[in-house]
Amino acid sequence: MLPKGTRDFSPDVSAKRAYIIGVIKRNFKKYGFSPLETSSMENLSVLTGKYGEEGDQLIYRVLNSGDFLHKTVEEDYRLGSKHLATKISEKGLRYDLTVPLARYVVTHRHEIPFPFKRFQIQTVWRGDNPQKGRYREFCQCDADIIGSKSIWNEVELMLLIHDVFQDLGLADYVVKINHRGILFALAQYVGLEGSEVAFCAEIDKLEKIGEEKVMENVLNRGGQSQRLRKVMELFTASELADSIARLTALVGQTRGIEDITAFFETLKAFETKASRVTLDLSLARGLSYYTGIIFEVKPTSTPMGSLCGGGRYDDLTLVFGLKDISGVGISFGLDRIYHLIEEGGAFPYKATHRLDVLIVHFNAENKKHGQTLVMALRDREIKADLYPNEAKIQKQLHYAHKINVPYTLIIGDEEMQSNLYSLKEMMTGKQQKLGLEALIKKLQHSSS
Amino acid sequence: MLPKGTRDFSPDVSAKRAYIIGVIKRNFKKYGFSPLETSSMENLSVLTGKYGEEGDQLIYRVLNSGDFLHKTVEEDYRLGSKHLATKISEKGLRYDLTVPLARYVVTHRHEIPFPFKRFQIQTVWRGDNPQKGRYREFCQCDADIIGSKSIWNEVELMLLIHDVFQDLGLADYVVKINHRGILFALAQYVGLEGSEVAFCAEIDKLEKIGEEKVMENVLNRGGQSQRLRKVMELFTASELADSIARLTALVGQTRGIEDITAFFETLKAFETKASRVTLDLSLARGLSYYTGIIFEVKPTSTPMGSLCGGGRYDDLTLVFGLKDISGVGISFGLDRIYHLIEEGGAFPYKATHRLDVLIVHFNAENKKHGQTLVMALRDREIKADLYPNEAKIQKQLHYAHKINVPYTLIIGDEEMQSNLYSLKEMMTGKQQKLGLEALIKKLQHSSS
Repeated sequence: MLPKGTRDFSPDVSAKRAYIIGVIKRNFKKYGFSPLETSSMENLSVLTGKYGEEGDQLIYRVLNSGDFLHKTVEEDYRLGSKHLATKISEKGLRYDLTVPLARYVVTHRHEIPFPFKRFQIQTVWRGDNPQKGRYREFCQCDADIIGSKSIWNEVELMLLIHDVFQDLGLADYVVKINHRGILFALAQYVGLEGSEVAFCAEIDKLEKIGEEKVMENVLNRGGQSQRLRKVMELFTASELADSIARLTALVGQTRGIEDITAFFETLKAFETKASRVTLDLSLARGLSYYTGIIFEVKPTSTPMGSLCGGGRYDDLTLVFGLKDISGVGISFGLDRIYHLIEEGGAFPYKATHRLDVLIVHFNAENKKHGQTLVMALRDREIKADLYPNEAKIQKQLHYAHKINVPYTLIIGDEEMQSNLYSLKEMMTGKQQKLGLEALIKKLQHSSS
Repeated sequence: MLPKGTRDFSPDVSAKRAYIIGVIKRNFKKYGFSPLETSSMENLSVLTGKYGEEGDQLIYRVLNSGDFLHKTVEEDYRLGSKHLATKISEKGLRYDLTVPLARYVVTHRHEIPFPFKRFQIQTVWRGDNPQKGRYREFCQCDADIIGSKSIWNEVELMLLIHDVFQDLGLADYVVKINHRGILFALAQYVGLEGSEVAFCAEIDKLEKIGEEKVMENVLNRGGQSQRLRKVMELFTASELADSIARLTALVGQTRGIEDITAFFETLKAFETKASRVTLDLSLARGLSYYTGIIFEVKPTSTPMGSLCGGGRYDDLTLVFGLKDISGVGISFGLDRIYHLIEEGGAFPYKATHRLDVLIVHFNAENKKHGQTLVMALRDREIKADLYPNEAKIQKQLHYAHKINVPYTLIIGDEEMQSNLYSLKEMMTGKQQKLGLEALIKKLQHSSS
């Protein structure tokens, strides 16, 4: 019944997703990012032409309301889908969070205090072919710093990555760093001046199709064979100083090398948080708008795409006519992070835990007592529920098992008289008689 | 640049919205509701026919991907928008959260433990005419209990309403209660058997068009004048017992009266939380699917639509072929609640507060020191930021004012040597010299 490539998130999955988002959001805030939300629908004039021709095809278009044909003629129909679409649809669904950010910054440039640090956690839609792990609706978790060229911003994002993954209990990953300026210089070195972006796109395929095929492609584009081999050798260097020295020998001093040097120099002060950050001169990143340092987080234990990525773009808002607004951004991939934690069984108890205690009862009088009790617990911020129907105790306990609540509290006539309640730990079956205050303390303790 | 009726939410507004949603969500969880998220796009077969003919017109349709015309013929074009739409669009955007819930429950009926208590806070889209306070994209905050007929569920929702509005600092409101069964009985009493829903729709207009006009409408539908007058008199009764007695005299004992009596009887045990709940026999609620108790929260100090509403529906999933699944639900209106708090200036400090401290500096060396310091603060969960560029101190302080940060911390050579930092309270201009631990304590204290 659900459209292809879309998903519902059951309470269990939704709670786990909320846990990940909560960790990311708390860290975004800790690092000084403020929330921004933009409209789901954008005018197509804002969206189209920003994601390449292929991207444009994947934008979901929303049909104009009402009699959407009233301004069309039969000729429009005969000219085909692409043409008719422009006549009957003015709006599209958000394809990413970067273009809406650029539009927002341009629109509000006179009110925004720069540097503008915003985070945005919202849904995006792409009419991609659904396949394992790729969906038509998914959540992006982005943070960007707009209007500052300081390399400290890039360093800060490295420290943020460390804190997020540490909080999520994930340790098996590396952060790969490169600089688009270096790749551009290498492109020119191999003789591909004017085709720098195409060179990056070829290098981006290294992992996918292998060195030989990439070399063949670059040679076909007019690259010089001997120089290309030197570039490929460069990719195998493992020491930072060695890479930089060999790189400088090939292309001389460039902004890219300066940035990377300053970046690692600044990062040094934060050794414990920076240990997984490594220069990888073959990292290219697909997106064409990056111009400075780029980075990607890759899991080391599982073959999987990147968990997080980002980089610096010198002209975020140029497409909307505003020049010289530099920014640097990061995007966490919620689905992949979810998958990795789920695979490792590493979701903590609190991520799946949704209810502290369920009160069950033998009869109408007991239930009535339970109503007062459940409210007394809730008033103390305990997530408590009362089985709402009168039913056999076995049925109520079966329900407790199915909703996976850690404790049940059974109310019978004896409990009502003594005001001592039987708290049953569902996992062990152990029961304990407790007065109200002792009960509250125990449940408050177990829920935190 | 933004489509009509849609909005961006600036950091300030977004933070305030997150504060309200946070309060609602915390209470949903406290009352035992679990999160559910459904797809933004639904197949049109799921959406259409559920919201009346007018509603159907307001559903946003998504154009099929790729060459959407390839299965059409010119005849389809000539038959007009309504017809062509069915050929070129299969999906629509979520119009509310109730129909997706019904679809979800039907699809997963064998895995869901009933009673199913779920909350859902997601965006919905309606191609309505945008007007003051009405948008084409807005957020609904729903909670429903599915699969329990116990009146305790309705009572629980009243207590939830109290807790939410208390946490939000809102006290000027009443909760109006009625029962669709009572309205149906009154419809039959005035002679409108078979037109009960239409009768409800007329009564729903009382506030808008006045008693005289409503009476005229009902009479035109075939209502008996004398009996109708008695019903109108009933609406003015203010005491619960009096209302019930006069009502019973007119229509005899009905399920509606039984439910309402049991409801108020149960509610009595929670006096402090129930004081604003009052029977209003003229409350009708527009939506046709309600069959039991209905309720609405109205602000008393501002003329404004309802802040929250809901009720019981006996056959949520009937439209999808699953019978006898009763539910009761509540929906908080985020935009109106926001508006009311904003009007009253009642957003607490923590709702707008996004950063604890900004570190500013005189030169590159000071800034470098600030980098270590900002990380030391963040490691203690303080929301701290460092002005990333080297700039005149006046410019940095101006930025601090614009982002509305409560404290700045100024690092000069002296501070670097002494490790005593000047913390400046921006509101008062007061400065204080503090060591790192004292600084952390002060900022942790001020941010909570």
